[in-house]
Amino acid sequence: MAERNLTLLTDFYELTMMQGYFKNKTNETVVFDAFYRTNPSGSGYAICCGLEQVIDYIKNLKFEQDDIDYFRSLSIFDEDFLEYLKNFKFSGDIYSVPEGSVVFPMEPLVKVIAPIMEAQLVETAILNIINHQSLIATKASRVCYAACGEGVMEFGLRRAQGPDAGTLGARAAVIGGCIGTSNVQSAKMFGMPVLGTHAHSWIMSFEDELTAFRKYAELYPNSVTLLVDTYDTLRSGVPNAIRVFKEMKEAGTLTSRYGIRLDSGDLSYLSKRARKMLNEAGLNDAFISASSDLDEYLIDSLKTQGAQINSWGVGTNLITSKDCPAFGGVYKLAAIKQDDIFIPKIKLSENQWKITNPGNKTIYRIYDKESGKIKADLIALVGEKYSEDNPLLLFDPMATWKKTYLKPGTYKMRELLVPIFLNGECVYGSPAVMDIRTYCQDELNTLWDETRRLVNPQDVYVDLSNELYHMKHQLLDSYNSSVRE
Amino acid sequence: MAERNLTLLTDFYELTMMQGYFKNKTNETVVFDAFYRTNPSGSGYAICCGLEQVIDYIKNLKFEQDDIDYFRSLSIFDEDFLEYLKNFKFSGDIYSVPEGSVVFPMEPLVKVIAPIMEAQLVETAILNIINHQSLIATKASRVCYAACGEGVMEFGLRRAQGPDAGTLGARAAVIGGCIGTSNVQSAKMFGMPVLGTHAHSWIMSFEDELTAFRKYAELYPNSVTLLVDTYDTLRSGVPNAIRVFKEMKEAGTLTSRYGIRLDSGDLSYLSKRARKMLNEAGLNDAFISASSDLDEYLIDSLKTQGAQINSWGVGTNLITSKDCPAFGGVYKLAAIKQDDIFIPKIKLSENQWKITNPGNKTIYRIYDKESGKIKADLIALVGEKYSEDNPLLLFDPMATWKKTYLKPGTYKMRELLVPIFLNGECVYGSPAVMDIRTYCQDELNTLWDETRRLVNPQDVYVDLSNELYHMKHQLLDSYNSSVRE
Repeated sequence: MAERNLTLLTDFYELTMMQGYFKNKTNETVVFDAFYRTNPSGSGYAICCGLEQVIDYIKNLKFEQDDIDYFRSLSIFDEDFLEYLKNFKFSGDIYSVPEGSVVFPMEPLVKVIAPIMEAQLVETAILNIINHQSLIATKASRVCYAACGEGVMEFGLRRAQGPDAGTLGARAAVIGGCIGTSNVQSAKMFGMPVLGTHAHSWIMSFEDELTAFRKYAELYPNSVTLLVDTYDTLRSGVPNAIRVFKEMKEAGTLTSRYGIRLDSGDLSYLSKRARKMLNEAGLNDAFISASSDLDEYLIDSLKTQGAQINSWGVGTNLITSKDCPAFGGVYKLAAIKQDDIFIPKIKLSENQWKITNPGNKTIYRIYDKESGKIKADLIALVGEKYSEDNPLLLFDPMATWKKTYLKPGTYKMRELLVPIFLNGECVYGSPAVMDIRTYCQDELNTLWDETRRLVNPQDVYVDLSNELYHMKHQLLDSYNSSVRE
Repeated sequence: MAERNLTLLTDFYELTMMQGYFKNKTNETVVFDAFYRTNPSGSGYAICCGLEQVIDYIKNLKFEQDDIDYFRSLSIFDEDFLEYLKNFKFSGDIYSVPEGSVVFPMEPLVKVIAPIMEAQLVETAILNIINHQSLIATKASRVCYAACGEGVMEFGLRRAQGPDAGTLGARAAVIGGCIGTSNVQSAKMFGMPVLGTHAHSWIMSFEDELTAFRKYAELYPNSVTLLVDTYDTLRSGVPNAIRVFKEMKEAGTLTSRYGIRLDSGDLSYLSKRARKMLNEAGLNDAFISASSDLDEYLIDSLKTQGAQINSWGVGTNLITSKDCPAFGGVYKLAAIKQDDIFIPKIKLSENQWKITNPGNKTIYRIYDKESGKIKADLIALVGEKYSEDNPLLLFDPMATWKKTYLKPGTYKMRELLVPIFLNGECVYGSPAVMDIRTYCQDELNTLWDETRRLVNPQDVYVDLSNELYHMKHQLLDSYNSSVRE
């Protein structure tokens, strides 16, 4: 991705609007927020992910000559505008929540402050990248939560929605908690553990299953996982695997990393039966891994049933976030700078929750000092002053009578948005993926269990500052009266 | 995609198995089939799509030096194998159903006949590409079916699962029936119509909606679509749009392509009210386009309600195939060549429909001669001889007593698989995307309405030839007795 020029990864209307701004000489600096309205998969939170690819995208922004030629062929753009595009580069500021952060609805995850022509162009790609990776990282965190600390491997490349969905999806899955991926390209590109054993075709290519198992064990004695369901799991696969493990034990080649993989059938029943057979053969330390259309709910159910599985391979349902395959991030104009002042802008809607938050904003996260858990997030205007030494009054922006009063010394505050680009220059170095993964684990630990649970989680409060709340309501009132006139 | 090297877009186990085949000097020629078991989204058929990208992938297969270095760093591969990888190229045959073809479960969509090390490596990428694009093309064909011939525009880039999902997804959506896409990169790359107007931010960046509309109309008078829901659709957006259209009419700048876009609210109600307001203003030829979380079911319902919408923008639900975001294509070993004979191979399962079809196979499509509609598909072994001059007996492979007898002269036959690579050389030229789209429309016309309908469609029969059926059951019997021994 680092070298890919994705400048044309944009909706056509960004370009027609850009020409409109160009012709009307309205290239004021504006503020756009990328945010989302609902957590995916019924989750109580989301994991923000994809920033590194957004940075690469912005750095590589450049219209090539054949892009310009293509635009000319459409007979809708004028030469002066095409000339402008030739020298286009991003000159603005971008602030973002770091990758792997726990985030909540309505918070600006990425904030772009730039001349409107630039800020408009980058809308589509920023949303595409952040929506995709945040979706998969969130899903992975749920699957890993269900697995209760046992390793979850990302195995979905063949069912991913194209090459990037596989490769960037594996990146997001590892950030969200997976221990590694089967995707070689992604593992190499992002320095992540690469995992995998063999397929049914390995077994079928030998005269019989036992020979195939023996050959595999001979080749990879340090990590031997035998796939036992090609012909008959309990009558053929497990007995043959046991025979090979015993032979290895006798030959002294068996290490501590060996076991079987179940890939079809009733995983609960088969794993219990297989466990019993392995234990009776004195192979108590053999692991049992499973893979077969798993997701967080199935893993949770298998745990409840007492399935004897220690290791999980999750494919389709994770890499596509099957129950919720889109993260509904949007990108909305929040302010226009005039004479060095940000004039707030608002988009109305008949749905109250679709009304945007105006102004140049930031996010403060408020932690309970004792437990370190999140108490609430506060969306405030840039420039508002807060101090942990003062009391803090929070109120729900929909039900304003719901108030929480925090005494000084009982809470801690942290600003979530950090500068990524300033005046077009990148000022942020993306951490390595495995470090982002560690950060994400720490972030998840700041959530109460009530918010992490898979079904009906407790929402985290995202409040507006007093100043922002009143500005928003003033704008709403003034639009209402202007429409009535 | 044409220049991208996706050689590492593979599951790690393909490489560990390859080394296994290498070490065991078992590089026999094998047959692998890529097929799927269930139509997505409850459809009665699927559209096969993605072949052009498979061809690019195969052509660009090459392990670079830093790939080899990466493998070496994993301490699992031996030098002789790494040396082999350095000179790796695909030397086999690939047969495929042409893109845009209507296909059904269990049919080999792509068939690879190659030395097992090569055939194994390409599994993951072939599945990734075919699964993704077939999914989106199928979904698009359903959405377009619901729109009853009215134009459907692909608008989903921002919600797609990464850049490729947007760009290759738009390609598949157009093949499946969309008239164009908002995705500039995809439109340029594949020569497809690019579409789009303006966003809410355009409106919000001007002092008021009327000014924003006027400026837009001034700039793009030949195709003026005004987005009317930024503040209030019926009290502000539609009246302002009407005012601008009337001004254009008076000035003589109004062409035949003008109208409004609804992007939120109750599309049925708003479109009827807007239609009435437009007609009362003498703007009967203004179109009304709609976009807001649409899919085939919502469009169908809007049609039933008499919504006054002529043009459809479909985003999230199409580009992710939201109700079914994965196409379950698999890739299974079907035969191993020994002494110039293909020895059939079978994978068993406790689920009857998961048992594979063995042998080196092809597909014949059988049409009703009079109507040109599909009667059935026949999976047969390569080498079986058929002639339209002979009677043809078809039978259901699960319920063998269900027999159909076709008299000569009443049916036509066509072989679906065509050669793509022979001895590693590409022998197939991919048609232009808009030509594949036309072919796909013709293909869809060979389906009976009963199979095209959105809910509970009639399945098309996919039968096995007598020879294949008996070979399969012989193999099943012999495995059963070997397990019993």
